[in-house]
Amino acid sequence: MTTLPPFVHELIGSGPYAHLTTLNADGSPQVSVVWIGIEDDDLVCGHMGVWQKVKNVRRDPRVCVSMLGQKKNAMGLLEYLVVHGRARVTEGGAADLLQRLARIYMGPDVVFPPEPYRRSPGYITRITPERLGGVGPWSPAQR
Amino acid sequence: MTTLPPFVHELIGSGPYAHLTTLNADGSPQVSVVWIGIEDDDLVCGHMGVWQKVKNVRRDPRVCVSMLGQKKNAMGLLEYLVVHGRARVTEGGAADLLQRLARIYMGPDVVFPPEPYRRSPGYITRITPERLGGVGPWSPAQR
Repeated sequence: MTTLPPFVHELIGSGPYAHLTTLNADGSPQVSVVWIGIEDDDLVCGHMGVWQKVKNVRRDPRVCVSMLGQKKNAMGLLEYLVVHGRARVTEGGAADLLQRLARIYMGPDVVFPPEPYRRSPGYITRITPERLGGVGPWSPAQR
Repeated sequence: MTTLPPFVHELIGSGPYAHLTTLNADGSPQVSVVWIGIEDDDLVCGHMGVWQKVKNVRRDPRVCVSMLGQKKNAMGLLEYLVVHGRARVTEGGAADLLQRLARIYMGPDVVFPPEPYRRSPGYITRITPERLGGVGPWSPAQR
């Protein structure tokens, strides 16, 4: 695992939409856009059901999480972060996590997920970062 | 292949940053953020060198291209588009493509790529769409 540097905490704390790539049973890629948080140096995202990405992570833990940055580099290209990691799925706590993230992604007074979904325990995908890539201070020249 | 509907042309024409997922030799996912265009119903992106994504596409054509939309759905979630497709790499024309896209992504008067990179023929990844996913008019309820 790799410890997330302060500028990654800063970026993720700002509420960027994250593209979560998992692997289907046939090895092809699957992408969903998710809200993302950090817990104990893992990236976390919540799901109220066993969606395809949850099934995929249970079969193959290799994932990427990618998101746009907020600055441009010297060539004028927008920075972006890619986190390569290994994921696992835990049960429960998804509604609380989504409610915490909804305040960042939707607004401070939002109630999310709505009833009756928030009564379900749901699932959390926990991604342990192994390598950072993209364009930005987290990676000098990786493509 | 699938024909791209008008709202996909509209979204891509607006210059969204696209997350291109390819597959490494060990089957793990690789993500780069790229500028994207449409040519003959294929998605196209240009590269001035044989980056990892170019090597990956030559080995395994299965890719995803994902990008954020501009509207929110009834639940207040931001729309996003995922294009599942098969990619191939052609040689040449990358500087012209990047120059065309730079006018959309960077500004109408921008010269990109700069000298001496623009003299290189470069490579174009051409992605034939097979299936659309995400959240938006392109996909009713896919995760």
